[in-house]
Amino acid sequence: MNLRLALAQLNPTVGAINANLQQLKDAYAEAVQKNCSLIAFGELSVTGYPPEDLLLKPRFIIDQLAALNDFAASTSSCVAVVGVVDFDGQQLFNAAAVCSDGKVQHVYHKRNLPNYSVFDEKRYFSPGTEPLQLIGVNGVAVGISICEDIWVDDGPHIELVSAGAEILVSINGSPYHLDKDAERENLIANRASDLQVPICYVNQVGGQDELVFDGGSFVVDRGGELVARAPLFEESLLITDVSIEPREVRAQRTIDLGSESDTEISDPPLTPVADSISGDSELYEALVLGTRDYCHKNGFSDVVIGLSGGIDSTLVACVAVDALGPDHVHGVAMPSRYSSDHSLTDAEALADNLGIDMRTISIEPAFAAYMDMLDPSFEGRQPGLTWENVQSRCRGQILMALSNEFGWMVLTTGNKSEAAVGYFTIYGDSVGGYAVIKDLLKLKVYDLCRLVNQRSGKEVIPDNVITKPPSAELRPDQRDDQSLPPYEVLDPILSLYVEHDRTTTDIIDEGHDPDMVSRITRLVDIAEYKRRQSPPGVRVTRKAFGKDRRVPITNGYR
Amino acid sequence: MNLRLALAQLNPTVGAINANLQQLKDAYAEAVQKNCSLIAFGELSVTGYPPEDLLLKPRFIIDQLAALNDFAASTSSCVAVVGVVDFDGQQLFNAAAVCSDGKVQHVYHKRNLPNYSVFDEKRYFSPGTEPLQLIGVNGVAVGISICEDIWVDDGPHIELVSAGAEILVSINGSPYHLDKDAERENLIANRASDLQVPICYVNQVGGQDELVFDGGSFVVDRGGELVARAPLFEESLLITDVSIEPREVRAQRTIDLGSESDTEISDPPLTPVADSISGDSELYEALVLGTRDYCHKNGFSDVVIGLSGGIDSTLVACVAVDALGPDHVHGVAMPSRYSSDHSLTDAEALADNLGIDMRTISIEPAFAAYMDMLDPSFEGRQPGLTWENVQSRCRGQILMALSNEFGWMVLTTGNKSEAAVGYFTIYGDSVGGYAVIKDLLKLKVYDLCRLVNQRSGKEVIPDNVITKPPSAELRPDQRDDQSLPPYEVLDPILSLYVEHDRTTTDIIDEGHDPDMVSRITRLVDIAEYKRRQSPPGVRVTRKAFGKDRRVPITNGYR
Repeated sequence: MNLRLALAQLNPTVGAINANLQQLKDAYAEAVQKNCSLIAFGELSVTGYPPEDLLLKPRFIIDQLAALNDFAASTSSCVAVVGVVDFDGQQLFNAAAVCSDGKVQHVYHKRNLPNYSVFDEKRYFSPGTEPLQLIGVNGVAVGISICEDIWVDDGPHIELVSAGAEILVSINGSPYHLDKDAERENLIANRASDLQVPICYVNQVGGQDELVFDGGSFVVDRGGELVARAPLFEESLLITDVSIEPREVRAQRTIDLGSESDTEISDPPLTPVADSISGDSELYEALVLGTRDYCHKNGFSDVVIGLSGGIDSTLVACVAVDALGPDHVHGVAMPSRYSSDHSLTDAEALADNLGIDMRTISIEPAFAAYMDMLDPSFEGRQPGLTWENVQSRCRGQILMALSNEFGWMVLTTGNKSEAAVGYFTIYGDSVGGYAVIKDLLKLKVYDLCRLVNQRSGKEVIPDNVITKPPSAELRPDQRDDQSLPPYEVLDPILSLYVEHDRTTTDIIDEGHDPDMVSRITRLVDIAEYKRRQSPPGVRVTRKAFGKDRRVPITNGYR
Repeated sequence: MNLRLALAQLNPTVGAINANLQQLKDAYAEAVQKNCSLIAFGELSVTGYPPEDLLLKPRFIIDQLAALNDFAASTSSCVAVVGVVDFDGQQLFNAAAVCSDGKVQHVYHKRNLPNYSVFDEKRYFSPGTEPLQLIGVNGVAVGISICEDIWVDDGPHIELVSAGAEILVSINGSPYHLDKDAERENLIANRASDLQVPICYVNQVGGQDELVFDGGSFVVDRGGELVARAPLFEESLLITDVSIEPREVRAQRTIDLGSESDTEISDPPLTPVADSISGDSELYEALVLGTRDYCHKNGFSDVVIGLSGGIDSTLVACVAVDALGPDHVHGVAMPSRYSSDHSLTDAEALADNLGIDMRTISIEPAFAAYMDMLDPSFEGRQPGLTWENVQSRCRGQILMALSNEFGWMVLTTGNKSEAAVGYFTIYGDSVGGYAVIKDLLKLKVYDLCRLVNQRSGKEVIPDNVITKPPSAELRPDQRDDQSLPPYEVLDPILSLYVEHDRTTTDIIDEGHDPDMVSRITRLVDIAEYKRRQSPPGVRVTRKAFGKDRRVPITNGYR
């Protein structure tokens, strides 16, 4: 016996209830037209995930429930599982509403609420406590759960299957980090083969502030074998026929929907298994989608980027071109008295290769003006770092003025290594609306630049950009390695301290140089106030700077 | 029968375990010297509250438990109740350790974990589930709970009193908002008289990032009458004798500590009831303490403030002087071609009255330089708002250069009304380490300025500052009311939308002008990205911008 399923891997916008509702209706219509018996949408598909403190507005809850009812009223016999916020008069629930034949037939309340990492679900929701129910779809017993539920070993899937579930449907708002897709597929395959039940896993796709959802919805059979998979990082309506092995179902716990007969369908099932991508390619696509959605969902078509000829701004420009198209990317070179010739020529070559608008604005006049203006205050002093910061802020000023005048969003170009140790100027190179590579350590920036050239089969990024030693060029002959250890030494320490919650003592115990470790971790601590005022950017690791890492600014722990 | 208590209202620094440990020991020594039988410290007094993601570092947990054991080893018969993080090998608990005679005698695990507003306790802690125990101190049965526990109607106090508790000790990390002290005293007085038991309520004091803890520890008798109270906003070791009415205690649930005899003490109990303050005075003191602690705990002795002659920077300068002393406050007037004469004279008069350093740096040279530098890009355009933003950012540049060179923290001067509607320039007037009045709506800024003059009995703030119409002075004859409705109209709408989670529709339904409301709430929504890059500041209302209000930037809800 077969059940034809549709997995609606949609890209909602948080809060845009009407637009999200239209997405649901369009996907539903297509599923009906393709003779599906069941369509599953993502977690909180009416509101988009995560709606954060919009959930504290009572009217918002009412509005999205009205949208659910509007959707439900439009349904026919195809059964839809829709993520929505339910309200019992006192508490909110992260819910899956089962809709068909013009109404909401059943509502499941998520039992396991993640409240770690980027998740704050216990801030809003109460866990479900109602008895579990199976949904009979064309006589097939379907068990429903939501995201975290299926990650928990003793989650509702255990009880659903012992009650007779013949297929499990898991609806998700599962954000991306490197290799998360493989991790999910492994987990779900193991659940399926352990429980001997097929599982349909549907995920949201798209960028939402610092999160990017990678999609990659899929179906595994009762042996855990992949039978269908949607692509990563794009919208998709995945339609597939799943073979169902009948079980004994405890009838009193089932709501029967749809027709009881096995639908015989003539057209062949549409079950592509999308190619898997991984590693650097996966990272790159995450950056592209995160950037595109942040710009477009916030009403920006164009971006402006300070092009220094360095590796960071180069990668950001490449991502921006893939996200928005070359006509929507504007580069600005902003040389100073300390800039080397190759900075400008490398930036120009890149802009040429990418086919983007590019202009040059020297920061000398403003820099000289500030030196004069501050002279009475600085009399007799030899400002060093201060003048470096002033230069960086002159560049920030130029970018913001172009942004204000032309409506271009500034893309920030700092990487995670710099953000960690505070090797950037607040209100200078950190200005911008979105920080594309803020979650990439410096060595990973190099990897992705090499990937760009490799993928395009030509030298889009001038070789010199990749091979020259990194420098901020804020004083004569400056190089990053005058202030910082080589990135080969720095990045692993940062990964331990920032991404893996090790302490200074722990890292020294692991054999790293004590003075070096103490110096680096101290730099990370005292840069917290600067990071706090930095723009959001795409999270691609297990722990990014942002809502993932909530460290106090005032912090006496060493 | 009397029990002599000490309430240690201390000002810890989050993470500074050794310094916090020393505070515990010093207070304990004083309590012993004054013949106290019991001393209670604040919630998480070893780590400081809230330690946030430091709790995710296993070594941090170990280190603070070592400090607890160090403290416990130093105790004699006086019983200490110490807030600490407990770890059972798998889970963390927000705990109260009972220490005496050289060791930890008992540990209570907080049962009710707040996870709303500024609180994230479920991110870190598991709730306590162990049976409750009473602590026998000199034969008096003491029941212990932690913060949120006593706010919950069916919290552990019910069970403790029915088990025979003769006094309740509640240890707290309860952050301030306006009138919170009165709210707490009412709640605790009601609990005491309902349960017919005295209650000792001890709170932390001091600033921690955006939170300020107001202290105001107190003891009520079994009738709910106040018998002792520590002052607000300062450290205090409050010592008092509490009269105990014996109850029947179920012995198997009591751990007996201290000597069994009623200690007869000759010196009179030290039980001052500190004066209560409220309203604007209370707000002002919160700003002073929050600012002082943020600066000092982060290693800054001095601050620099852009003095525009306007009401906002004026109030910030007054707070800074009270927080740090006039010798540590530096004012900078930064006139442009659009500045009126009174801007400079008012700023100078204020600086004179406050006795602070003051300098004037015209922004003209930098402004003119940017106009030239951008001319090729702006050819044929008449930039309006862009030139306003450039001026504001020139001022930000000057302040940051002084900060970088002299190590002065920039205090940001924006108020909550401006922050709400985005009436500020990102990287311009919003630059700085700490935003002193970011949680005060504009009308409240006026109230506090009047208070400053009233308290000092003279015109510290020039009258003209209070009476002239507000203006950003970024173009000829500019006034706030050309861009915004009068603050008398604006502030109430903002309060409903931002502080009370009402929607546009709700506010219109309440009778406000529909076009006005739609325009204002739209401004609030689209300014979220700017607020997200603003510095922290003292939270003084029930809902401040910051960790209190977690709204998505990408947000399609209207």
